Amino acid sequence: MINFDALFKISYGLYVVCSGNKEHGNGFICNTVMQVTADPVQLAVCCNKNNYTAEFIAHSGVLSISVLPENVSSELIGTFGYQSGRDKDKLQGFDVSYGIDNVPVLLSETVATIEGKVKQTIDVGTHLIYICEIIEATLLSNSNPITYDYYRKIKKGVSPKNAPTYVDETKQHTDETTSEKYRCLICGYIYDNAENDTPFEQLPEDWECPVCRAAKAMFEKM
Amino acid sequence: MINFDALFKISYGLYVVCSGNKEHGNGFICNTVMQVTADPVQLAVCCNKNNYTAEFIAHSGVLSISVLPENVSSELIGTFGYQSGRDKDKLQGFDVSYGIDNVPVLLSETVATIEGKVKQTIDVGTHLIYICEIIEATLLSNSNPITYDYYRKIKKGVSPKNAPTYVDETKQHTDETTSEKYRCLICGYIYDNAENDTPFEQLPEDWECPVCRAAKAMFEKM
Repeated sequence: MINFDALFKISYGLYVVCSGNKEHGNGFICNTVMQVTADPVQLAVCCNKNNYTAEFIAHSGVLSISVLPENVSSELIGTFGYQSGRDKDKLQGFDVSYGIDNVPVLLSETVATIEGKVKQTIDVGTHLIYICEIIEATLLSNSNPITYDYYRKIKKGVSPKNAPTYVDETKQHTDETTSEKYRCLICGYIYDNAENDTPFEQLPEDWECPVCRAAKAMFEKM
Repeated sequence: MINFDALFKISYGLYVVCSGNKEHGNGFICNTVMQVTADPVQLAVCCNKNNYTAEFIAHSGVLSISVLPENVSSELIGTFGYQSGRDKDKLQGFDVSYGIDNVPVLLSETVATIEGKVKQTIDVGTHLIYICEIIEATLLSNSNPITYDYYRKIKKGVSPKNAPTYVDETKQHTDETTSEKYRCLICGYIYDNAENDTPFEQLPEDWECPVCRAAKAMFEKM
């Protein structure tokens, strides 16, 4: 039997992975990045096959990774984690440079940037794993990188549906609680009255989900 | 150019990965574990080709992962991270259960255990990546899992030579410091006089490296 709480004990960071070029590019929030060899330096990056960024990676064979800090803004998470580059230019309004083969590299709020060339693409079902040889790695700040655990516990974030670590919480058995909670139907963010000064019902009507900026009406009582 | 300090901003946990059966088994310290699909639940685990455990995984096709806690003992790290199962039975003296196909599962000091069957083995050069379908995942404790960052910063640990994240620090450019430091020639642990009440020179002669238990004589001044 798989207890998903056990899987949540696996540690991850949080990254924006970008691909494309100066004319067209895209990026997505990714928690699945790890180094797999030291010589040469290679990283593995996991990406849902349906992600728009996967199309850019398949075309260009390059990607960049921006390590996010603990104090990452909800706006950045909302844009790169819960919106699609098919609907809007996600990179617009953010600070971006262009690296090897003109791959876009997100600089806004970024702790470190890494650029690599895809050497292998492995099909693992719903997702692809890219094995990338790293060409550039730059430290931009000494801020603490955000861990996925911190994102879940402190920032109350959840995995988007395309993430490898996505859990359908409606199928999960959870303990009874007495406090009132409201869940965003778009991104899954939970507003817990017990943890906020203002009860959900009393939030103004133009209040937005702090993660994906969905309207208050997009929340349902749990 | 690759700045290794940038790569250190990638977040990892710390695990003992075991394979084998009730008669013969082995385990090693691993920081490279990540979930790659949610349906079915699959994890990627990276392992040096020379690791003794790799032979057991190739033979049995199963492995277990034990998530280590922040307060993991130096004895456990020393045994599984800096000794070889070719020289000694690493599992002896630790609490172990046997899971699917009798794979050994380390229980001592463990936060959560995960058991999986290898579905793909990917050759990435010095290392192999196992894509495992997870059959069992069990939560044993609510302790915080140790992150690799915590291991490096708080516990002063370094990567063994077989790790994907190994850095040859003798090749690294580092800032000049005035405090005296001594490095363990076996595991790389650094004893910094500035961070300890007792200067290294005044430690008793039977003092041992807190990570790999090497003798005091195995330290060199940096």
